[in-house]
Amino acid sequence: MYRTHTNGSLRIENVSNEVTLSGWVQKIRDKGFMVWVDLRDRYGIIQLIFDEERSTKELMEKARSLGREFVIQISGTVVERESKNPNMPTGDIEVLVDELNILNAAKIPPFTIEKDTDGGDELRMQYRYLDIRRKPVRNNIIFRHQVSMEVRKYLSDQGFIDVETPYLIKSTPEGARDFVVPSRMNKGQFYALPQSPQTFKQLLMVGGMDKYFQIVKCFRDEDLRADRQPEFTQIDCEMAFVEQEDILNTFEGLVKHLLQEIKGVTIDKFPRMSYEDAMKKYGNDKPDIRFGMEFGELNDLTQNKGFNVFDAAALVVGIAAPGCAEYTRKQIDKLTDFVKKPQVGAKGLVWVKYNEAGNLKSSVDKFYSQEDLKEWAVRLKAKPGDLLLILAGEANATRTHLSALRMHLAAEIGLRKPDEFAPLWITDFPLLEWDEETRRFHAMHHPFTAPKPEDKHLLEKEPGKVRANAYDMVLNGNEIGGGSIRIHDKETQSRMFDLLGFSKEEAQAQFGFLMNAFEYGAPPHGGIAFGLDRLVAILGGQESIRDFIAFPKNNAGRDVMIDAPATIAQDQLDELNLKLKS
Amino acid sequence: MYRTHTNGSLRIENVSNEVTLSGWVQKIRDKGFMVWVDLRDRYGIIQLIFDEERSTKELMEKARSLGREFVIQISGTVVERESKNPNMPTGDIEVLVDELNILNAAKIPPFTIEKDTDGGDELRMQYRYLDIRRKPVRNNIIFRHQVSMEVRKYLSDQGFIDVETPYLIKSTPEGARDFVVPSRMNKGQFYALPQSPQTFKQLLMVGGMDKYFQIVKCFRDEDLRADRQPEFTQIDCEMAFVEQEDILNTFEGLVKHLLQEIKGVTIDKFPRMSYEDAMKKYGNDKPDIRFGMEFGELNDLTQNKGFNVFDAAALVVGIAAPGCAEYTRKQIDKLTDFVKKPQVGAKGLVWVKYNEAGNLKSSVDKFYSQEDLKEWAVRLKAKPGDLLLILAGEANATRTHLSALRMHLAAEIGLRKPDEFAPLWITDFPLLEWDEETRRFHAMHHPFTAPKPEDKHLLEKEPGKVRANAYDMVLNGNEIGGGSIRIHDKETQSRMFDLLGFSKEEAQAQFGFLMNAFEYGAPPHGGIAFGLDRLVAILGGQESIRDFIAFPKNNAGRDVMIDAPATIAQDQLDELNLKLKS
Repeated sequence: MYRTHTNGSLRIENVSNEVTLSGWVQKIRDKGFMVWVDLRDRYGIIQLIFDEERSTKELMEKARSLGREFVIQISGTVVERESKNPNMPTGDIEVLVDELNILNAAKIPPFTIEKDTDGGDELRMQYRYLDIRRKPVRNNIIFRHQVSMEVRKYLSDQGFIDVETPYLIKSTPEGARDFVVPSRMNKGQFYALPQSPQTFKQLLMVGGMDKYFQIVKCFRDEDLRADRQPEFTQIDCEMAFVEQEDILNTFEGLVKHLLQEIKGVTIDKFPRMSYEDAMKKYGNDKPDIRFGMEFGELNDLTQNKGFNVFDAAALVVGIAAPGCAEYTRKQIDKLTDFVKKPQVGAKGLVWVKYNEAGNLKSSVDKFYSQEDLKEWAVRLKAKPGDLLLILAGEANATRTHLSALRMHLAAEIGLRKPDEFAPLWITDFPLLEWDEETRRFHAMHHPFTAPKPEDKHLLEKEPGKVRANAYDMVLNGNEIGGGSIRIHDKETQSRMFDLLGFSKEEAQAQFGFLMNAFEYGAPPHGGIAFGLDRLVAILGGQESIRDFIAFPKNNAGRDVMIDAPATIAQDQLDELNLKLKS
Repeated sequence: MYRTHTNGSLRIENVSNEVTLSGWVQKIRDKGFMVWVDLRDRYGIIQLIFDEERSTKELMEKARSLGREFVIQISGTVVERESKNPNMPTGDIEVLVDELNILNAAKIPPFTIEKDTDGGDELRMQYRYLDIRRKPVRNNIIFRHQVSMEVRKYLSDQGFIDVETPYLIKSTPEGARDFVVPSRMNKGQFYALPQSPQTFKQLLMVGGMDKYFQIVKCFRDEDLRADRQPEFTQIDCEMAFVEQEDILNTFEGLVKHLLQEIKGVTIDKFPRMSYEDAMKKYGNDKPDIRFGMEFGELNDLTQNKGFNVFDAAALVVGIAAPGCAEYTRKQIDKLTDFVKKPQVGAKGLVWVKYNEAGNLKSSVDKFYSQEDLKEWAVRLKAKPGDLLLILAGEANATRTHLSALRMHLAAEIGLRKPDEFAPLWITDFPLLEWDEETRRFHAMHHPFTAPKPEDKHLLEKEPGKVRANAYDMVLNGNEIGGGSIRIHDKETQSRMFDLLGFSKEEAQAQFGFLMNAFEYGAPPHGGIAFGLDRLVAILGGQESIRDFIAFPKNNAGRDVMIDAPATIAQDQLDELNLKLKS
């Protein structure tokens, strides 16, 4: 037996117990007549002591031969410490060692195994197995496990059935790019890895399995934007015989349960906002509502006063940054630089300081009176001490720019608090989205989303105006889940493929199985999928998903630890009937 | 709202309740003045009633227009039945319908949606979404969910952490063939889908995550033997700071928990048998011990009595088939035919009837006396009424033949009872297996398995004799799990790769990351993986895994429902820098 206890579990009550412990050498302090070793495992750290009075010479020598990250096993007696450490759960005691067994030596690790390490990102990824020994990474992985377990428990208790859907499926040209898998037994043919189990979960509904869930890997071969992974995990769910309201209630219940169980945060009812309102109020379909700074439209108050920039703009829109009236010229210039960055793209920024004294000072004093500016402040619900920031231009673009500024500022002034949770539902998404580049409509959610019954009459003549029974759950400015009520009849599904530019043949070849299934008694159904990586990161009070994935890939889609992808043998290619293009 | 109740939930207490129900039309009986409809959902079946006295003419017409598998919604009143059906949970009541809403019509299904369907295998696979509506398939899928949940619950309660390992990894030539995934971003390079997360779980141990589990898909591109799938599911587990005994106890605990919770079967302690004993006693490393028929070796009792077949044989070995002494000539001929089938491969079969009266009659009476035969019967622990069956030839092959006969007979005489559970551990597997074809050693378990310390000295001179700390869990004649204590030092791992015929360069290119990891403080560790598909099937009292997979593939690795694999577009190939060989 390698251990009688784990290293975080011993307390003052264990004094005089004989124990056997195993773990890694965290730290060694050699005071000559005494040697202390911090022994670490997943559960904590305990101090070992060797001293010249009580330990043999051989044992002292052996203790001195240890290095950081050596794996050792010891036997000894728990004793009370002379100088206690109240910052450690095991800080009242130490173990006087009488036997030391080196289980495995260790080279000096390439970075320190501490909370704050000296290792850079790339190095930590290459030695991820060492990075995982660090407490913050270890805790993230354990936290993810806890969230997954709670999700499963909640959904299972609600009657949902975990069904595994296949990973080797068929490539579909709609949406993102698939990863494909050449078939050896069916030469010249390929499987694809699922971007989501969408069609399978719908077929489970046709199959009568009316509440389905799965925590499942999904795959997208996209050029990786920051913080995206080629393989990611979804909490995938579907229900039959439901309306949108049933789904919103069920999954609001899930996230409330997680907030309660995992974070101890009670939230009564999630607010709901239409897509249109979210765009108007926040310039964003995933607004962070932990703080205010709602948009105020100023066209009527700002135009025709001689300021050309505003006069020429389709939209003049602003926010009031709380308590920022005292920003210096330099600070405001930085905000201007921010909105003019190519990633944001605004042309300039108008500011108005609403001073504590009540007077207003702006970058456009030449054109506007104190009374004018006061009216703006009222519209933007500003209080004395706030800084008004105003952008102008084409409506959609300007909203997007202002949203970026709002989020940037909120982070700057500390309004995005990681321990505060503000979920909301965004509803009534447009069904279709016009793509200027390909000159055709794309499905905003996906091609299986049902139009709202009351908008169905617009499908022929004004498809762009049709709204969908589609919804996103937003948490702290991140979309953590999205779903829709699905089409469940062949005719509507077929019409949708038309609208999306599929020929009848293409639609049949790709999704014939689904449309056939709809002819054999498909129930009304809908569902949702949550991004588990993101959900866990946000619940953990962080924004980067990579820190919550045990073995993530880098931005080039590479696993730098195992060095994948890699070339394969010629006979593997031959068996697959494939050739590399030169 | 589509329903106030599900269809299996109503009882006599609900009489006079107004209810709304949804589901599929299972059956319609039209007696002219009355129409009964059986309405089905996941939860059960309830009878609806329409009659000329109480229903409007329009409603009667509408009810008569229904077809099998139509999806409908009804509102009505629960009433007591005149003639009750004690075989249905809802058999005391029916629902008098006052509103009927056809949610979706259905074409006539290609096979009946009944427990015993008229649909053949291929057709049921093509319309798997209809097959899933059938109670046995639905129940299997729900049963699988229950087993998975119990596995997670048990392991999580024991401190195991569910860690997701990557699906896009690196191809390794050892073992079965990999499925590969061409990388678009890293041209000419490929990911591979994991055959198991073996190296990742070992790296988690190096990372200090000392109890890991995952229910995870694995992939093998093998020519599919019956009842194998190219993608299958493992319960994958690993522990650090453990010896074999710790692992056996932990996972015996898991399976005991499942048998208790899922089947209500209490098993105290699992028997253990060495690989060598299993081969001697049962000719098989996964013996079914629900019944006896242990092998008895008869060389000393049978040789040198003039029967050439036995005299020339390295091994003469037999079993006693209980109660089969009255087998007819024809029945015995059939057994002889069975052992002579090419799939079995024996040359012939010697039989001895141990009659109830105590006398013995054999196919070799010419060579052996009653006293001789009596000795055989004693050796084979036969009782009067048993049939002794004896094979002879090369030792290993003959044991394999007799094992096949033993299993065949046990099935024939009803000894393989699906509701009886007999688990056992097989231990002390050989580390290596000599492969005649490639003229080299293969790892019997996998290349990461540690030799037994006491056999390590044989590694250089007699590698074939080295035993491993490897173990299988066997349930009812099926291997449901297997694992080993792993190598955790670079030197032994490197030596193992030598033995398996890897060059230093190959070993470094394929597994360098693991051997490097072993230099930074790798703890002793080991683990196990269970085949979830098989485990669920056996717990469900069946042998075929396909019935416990929602969307299985056929023996050609095809999903006949979605028609995958399939060709992909030329521009997909181009982007991947690939060409098909003509």
